[in-house]
Amino acid sequence: MTKSNERLRVAEEFLLEQIPLTRAMGLRVVPDAEDGFAIEAPVALNHNHLQTAFGGSINAVATLAGYAFVWLELNDTNVHVVVRASRIRFLRPIREVIRAVCLPPAQRETERFRAALRAAGQARLDLQVRVEENGVVAAQFDGSFVALAGGLANER
Amino acid sequence: MTKSNERLRVAEEFLLEQIPLTRAMGLRVVPDAEDGFAIEAPVALNHNHLQTAFGGSINAVATLAGYAFVWLELNDTNVHVVVRASRIRFLRPIREVIRAVCLPPAQRETERFRAALRAAGQARLDLQVRVEENGVVAAQFDGSFVALAGGLANER
Repeated sequence: MTKSNERLRVAEEFLLEQIPLTRAMGLRVVPDAEDGFAIEAPVALNHNHLQTAFGGSINAVATLAGYAFVWLELNDTNVHVVVRASRIRFLRPIREVIRAVCLPPAQRETERFRAALRAAGQARLDLQVRVEENGVVAAQFDGSFVALAGGLANER
Repeated sequence: MTKSNERLRVAEEFLLEQIPLTRAMGLRVVPDAEDGFAIEAPVALNHNHLQTAFGGSINAVATLAGYAFVWLELNDTNVHVVVRASRIRFLRPIREVIRAVCLPPAQRETERFRAALRAAGQARLDLQVRVEENGVVAAQFDGSFVALAGGLANER
């Protein structure tokens, strides 16, 4: 197991332990060749009345992809991450596996985020998440995530 | 139990049976004096790493409030309801119970929706959902829901 895969395993354990609903969702953090990692959950545990993925589950998987991106980017357990706002468009049904990939923002944007967090103890990062099945986009998610230095983290 | 409360019980059973994640969330459909009904879920089953409600759970409860509103409005088991798009703003943490209330749209809008569904077998309804705790708004959700006559329902 590479160091990178070890970090994904730690991230998965963190989510499964700290957010119990992720266990019921069958959540996994898996390596992704192109974008570093993906968050997956089987439709069998996340279906709706039409036996396709429930929109609420798709949104939750996408939200967790954003959370995990920020956590893995900062790699600092004293920083808490919360979601402030998000929007999602559902483009097609998902039948087997919900798979969400957070698109890395421009490096300049990530640097601005880190600098703001150091200076103010709080910083916002806007992220795009692509939800797909078999390589075809099924939903598009945009979220505003806020990182909070330990003492400020009395929020969601 | 009034006829209205009986319909809420049937809606709750439908959600718990058809969308298994709602069982893990501890979902309830409860009467609401002002707006007819509310969807609730305890934070104990839906918390994040900060012991407040997970944003993905808040979004799911709000989405289900919209679904349930359309189902109860149409009262026709041959019509399927799917969510096409949504956005949410998280305003404050939720500590005990996630409670989502769908705001009834103007009667004219509901009539347009019903007429379009009859004419085209498919119609969209935009709904606002207020998520609250102890009467204070904690999140604001807007969703576009689509009703599909039985034969068209091959989507989420």
